[in-house]
Amino acid sequence: MSKLDELNPLFYPRAVAVVGATDNPSKHGNWYLRSILGRGFPREHAYPVNPNEDKVLGIKSYPRVQDVPEQLDYVIFAVPRRLAKDILRDCVEAKVKFVVIFTSGFSESDLAPEEGRKLERELLEIISGSGTRIVGPNGMGVYSFDGHLSYPYLYNPPEDGPVSFASQSGGHTVGLAIMADFWSNIRFNKIVSFGNAIDLEVTDYLEYFAEDPKTKVINIYVEGVRDGPRFFRALREAIRVKPVVVWKGGWTSGGSRATLSHTGSLAGSNRIWRVVLKQAGAVQVFGMEELCDVTMAFLRINPPRGLNTAILGGGGGQSVVSTDECESAGLKVPPFSPETREKLSKIIPDIGTGIANPIDASYFVYNDLSMYSSLLDLVDKDPKIDFIILQHEAMLGERDEELFRILKDAKERLEKPFALVLYPSGGPFKYTPEMEAERLKLVKKYLDNGFLIYPSVYRASNAVCKVVWYYNFLQRCEKIENAEVPLKTA
Amino acid sequence: MSKLDELNPLFYPRAVAVVGATDNPSKHGNWYLRSILGRGFPREHAYPVNPNEDKVLGIKSYPRVQDVPEQLDYVIFAVPRRLAKDILRDCVEAKVKFVVIFTSGFSESDLAPEEGRKLERELLEIISGSGTRIVGPNGMGVYSFDGHLSYPYLYNPPEDGPVSFASQSGGHTVGLAIMADFWSNIRFNKIVSFGNAIDLEVTDYLEYFAEDPKTKVINIYVEGVRDGPRFFRALREAIRVKPVVVWKGGWTSGGSRATLSHTGSLAGSNRIWRVVLKQAGAVQVFGMEELCDVTMAFLRINPPRGLNTAILGGGGGQSVVSTDECESAGLKVPPFSPETREKLSKIIPDIGTGIANPIDASYFVYNDLSMYSSLLDLVDKDPKIDFIILQHEAMLGERDEELFRILKDAKERLEKPFALVLYPSGGPFKYTPEMEAERLKLVKKYLDNGFLIYPSVYRASNAVCKVVWYYNFLQRCEKIENAEVPLKTA
Repeated sequence: MSKLDELNPLFYPRAVAVVGATDNPSKHGNWYLRSILGRGFPREHAYPVNPNEDKVLGIKSYPRVQDVPEQLDYVIFAVPRRLAKDILRDCVEAKVKFVVIFTSGFSESDLAPEEGRKLERELLEIISGSGTRIVGPNGMGVYSFDGHLSYPYLYNPPEDGPVSFASQSGGHTVGLAIMADFWSNIRFNKIVSFGNAIDLEVTDYLEYFAEDPKTKVINIYVEGVRDGPRFFRALREAIRVKPVVVWKGGWTSGGSRATLSHTGSLAGSNRIWRVVLKQAGAVQVFGMEELCDVTMAFLRINPPRGLNTAILGGGGGQSVVSTDECESAGLKVPPFSPETREKLSKIIPDIGTGIANPIDASYFVYNDLSMYSSLLDLVDKDPKIDFIILQHEAMLGERDEELFRILKDAKERLEKPFALVLYPSGGPFKYTPEMEAERLKLVKKYLDNGFLIYPSVYRASNAVCKVVWYYNFLQRCEKIENAEVPLKTA
Repeated sequence: MSKLDELNPLFYPRAVAVVGATDNPSKHGNWYLRSILGRGFPREHAYPVNPNEDKVLGIKSYPRVQDVPEQLDYVIFAVPRRLAKDILRDCVEAKVKFVVIFTSGFSESDLAPEEGRKLERELLEIISGSGTRIVGPNGMGVYSFDGHLSYPYLYNPPEDGPVSFASQSGGHTVGLAIMADFWSNIRFNKIVSFGNAIDLEVTDYLEYFAEDPKTKVINIYVEGVRDGPRFFRALREAIRVKPVVVWKGGWTSGGSRATLSHTGSLAGSNRIWRVVLKQAGAVQVFGMEELCDVTMAFLRINPPRGLNTAILGGGGGQSVVSTDECESAGLKVPPFSPETREKLSKIIPDIGTGIANPIDASYFVYNDLSMYSSLLDLVDKDPKIDFIILQHEAMLGERDEELFRILKDAKERLEKPFALVLYPSGGPFKYTPEMEAERLKLVKKYLDNGFLIYPSVYRASNAVCKVVWYYNFLQRCEKIENAEVPLKTA
């Protein structure tokens, strides 16, 4: 059975039950049922299970899982830990395909981890030999845009997206769903919060997302894996078909200790993780911002052929430090070809400017924003350049609209990938939260129009550098496979 | 003569002239004169110099510097490059103490650097043997809160501040004046933009700020120095009396090339700079944000005795990654003492929480924010802890006020230094620019009330780690000096 066939009932269930569903609006059992219905899951296939209720949210409730008159694909446990074993036995009896145990207090418990581990072993014994698989415990479950699933606390945007996210932290799924939308217009097709991962683990979700035609980029937050070699093989396979961006939690020694309290995971050596991810061709990131930055770059530009970057805009000091930012992130800012410099010198006056790369057109370009059109066209044609960054300040007025039109026209014309960095305004006035909100609205407008946009040259460069690295890795793989003569091993 | 006596006439001039002053509001000569008057410099000691005007801004204008009927301390050149030599000769004849040559197009010119260097040599020949000193060329000059000086483009806040900034980039002074106020409530007592630094260089300003009683923290942006050993000695001396935070521009190979186009500086090896700054006891930073982060930490907390940090707030995943952020910045997140854990277990239920450090009080603390009072008091008393970070989401409602009161009370009570990290709200809704503006207003409120506040645990930890490093360096210096027996040299 393909992974797609195996896990499709989890992400596209026909029938779902919520054990512990209730009309009491302060309970998770209530929130879970409402989350699913809110995502459009059909009421006729959504089943409250609660021996103390006749109806929940107007839907007939059943005392036990076995009483539900339909084959259940997915059952959510919103009950205290002490009930988990009995309900799991019910699920096995009812041949439920997947359960998510939201409840925490298992091996991650700080006070009684041994008791928690024992309970986890008992849960595994209960499903042993059955067709029932566990998501969690201490996991929040599944969001699926077209499978009509969601869970409490999670932002459900009206838009579908091309990214799927497997996360060992429920909190990070909640945070990422909001911030990826806010920072980068990134939306998700599928999300799974898998917690302690005692049965299904990160590798299962990775394999599924690799096969899933709705997933274009895979995001992972993981604290530990049980079967390292299997995870490595799954990564190697996945990256052949789509980029995998991995945020490893617990990569410092303190963070590694903290994973024990969070998901009971043994985090493993940071150095081994780095090497494994790199050798597998996965892109490693170190925080949520960077996860969004890199994912956005994968989604929005064609990969640059190389690292050579042209930087436009900004004064003299900004030219220096943006070059530092660009190069410290791994890209290169080479001098332009003599032909390009010759042409630049005809556009830009020589007083207080720079044409070597970065291009510092000083206030001349502020006075005449259309100069950017000619400058962009020039560097786009320079054979030494692979990627273009334009940095500018939000002007907070009508001129922003002028700049937007100029850059939108240019973007459609340019052959090389292009990123925009839009800074806060630099005028001689106090900068306020309201002005920052105006700048953020401008950023949204650029995002809505397909731009790759970042708040700093460092973040733009870091994201794009990782995209270049990934495609180079793919090319090397293909070269090795297509080689007609055996490669030298010397 | 002390450096204070030597440079006081530059930062507190009795009489100032602007050469090139004009009523034409599109000219720098106009903006310079208005900048100074706007900062409250007395009109009776502010002199327009322009042979083509009788009056500028209602003030009598003089044809030449020598015609001004008062001894001039500071003369601003707002004239084309070709006039610079003649006007400098006038200044020498008039025994002007300091001139700033705002004009660019000298050794930093991309098209004619050799011609620019020749012009710079001629300027130095003109002042040779005289008492006249040059700021610049290609520098914007001096801002002095109580010396009533400023220059175009620069934000002039109504508040004085304890920081002074010497910058080889004028643009960075403009950017920092705005963003330091916005991010960190940092204001400046003195700023100098010194450009190509052909005469007075960074070391002169550093020595002056070290002696200046109004300066509590020194900020520096530098691209290159002429006399490295002298700069090192000046740093060594300065850090004995106040922290020096240095942002070296051009520390990558591309950035180093870019300094040539900006200030004609030879940027020097990145490795040498790192070693020199570290051995001198200066704190090196790599961008404007970090410059503000570190400076704010120096201004707002007593130095922690060590690196051991308690982290409070955030869910399980956030506990893991905030520990990663804290430790990757150089601090440590050790387990609490058994006594502290025992006491924590009485405050926090054991389901879905963590008490090992970080403290993850899960939604219990959201339901009862006053729990933070007890938690803060507990970790404040743990002898293993030197520094406390509390991370929380802005709630964008009345509960923010409740949290503010609780933390304000706690801050006044706590013995250990404390930093706050305030995230965007994490609810199940779309986050908007308007919400971000609300969060930023909350940040301002905390800033206005003396809090050390950052947008991430990494930035809080990085800033505080550098503060700890500086005070440890100072202590080591003192130990060496106070040692009664000679130190072993083995």
